[in-house]
Amino acid sequence: MRKQLTLVTVITEGLLREQVIELLKRHGASGFTLTKVDGGEGSRGVRARDWEGPNLRFESIMAPAAAEAVLDEVGERFFENYAVVAWLSPVSVARGEKFVP
Amino acid sequence: MRKQLTLVTVITEGLLREQVIELLKRHGASGFTLTKVDGGEGSRGVRARDWEGPNLRFESIMAPAAAEAVLDEVGERFFENYAVVAWLSPVSVARGEKFVP
Amino acid sequence: MRKQLTLVTVITEGLLREQVIELLKRHGASGFTLTKVDGGEGSRGVRARDWEGPNLRFESIMAPAAAEAVLDEVGERFFENYAVVAWLSPVSVARGEKFVP
Repeated sequence: MRKQLTLVTVITEGLLREQVIELLKRHGASGFTLTKVDGGEGSRGVRARDWEGPNLRFESIMAPAAAEAVLDEVGERFFENYAVVAWLSPVSVARGEKFVP
Repeated sequence: MRKQLTLVTVITEGLLREQVIELLKRHGASGFTLTKVDGGEGSRGVRARDWEGPNLRFESIMAPAAAEAVLDEVGERFFENYAVVAWLSPVSVARGEKFVP
Repeated sequence: MRKQLTLVTVITEGLLREQVIELLKRHGASGFTLTKVDGGEGSRGVRARDWEGPNLRFESIMAPAAAEAVLDEVGERFFENYAVVAWLSPVSVARGEKFVP
């Protein structure tokens, strides 16, 4: 049975890795996918922290309200001082019950 | 001319590679994009099959009904025994006719 | 505050890299994310230009009208002669003002 949920995507500097994982789990994410980003440019200009390793993309399928809470917390905690982009997308999943605590 | 279609995303253990390609093509996919996944955690816990190579992300733009059939078959065939996540997203494409058989 | 914007995804042969970056910026993109693609098949068959390096995925969050203009120009300039796929997805972002010039 298909269920309407929300895909959370967070692209962030590598040094935020553990903080983003903790944040996702605390908001109820049952899992996440991690992909290295190979480049890009952002409104903050060229990254100063290349020694921290590549930027990372986190993706997690969550209940809509939890996804919105993740987006809000990412904005409040990281946008001021880090190169972070985050967005929510509507998705339809099979076996949606496994994504919602 | 823009057309409303569906993006199918399937993230799966590497050992399902050929089966997922066959499945996509049988449902009419005119193409797909393949990206390696660098990590993550899922509701099934840590993957036991690391010797099979990295997890893979398949993406294909399809007609909505075909995309739903892919999602259903992925769920029925793989969710019980493999670490697989799959979702559908609404997308708008240019030259949509090339994606629909 | 969340804002409804559009995620533009362009998957293209590596040789179009500079042209796609110029196109995105000219339409007002404040940034983009670049990821290497590891494989795939398209309606144009196997790529002939492997010496150009891997295919690339560009992603940028833009105002809806700008995103549609990018999609149209990508179609007009590249679809005839290159292996290119492009689509638009509706997204919700935090701090949307930084994506809109």
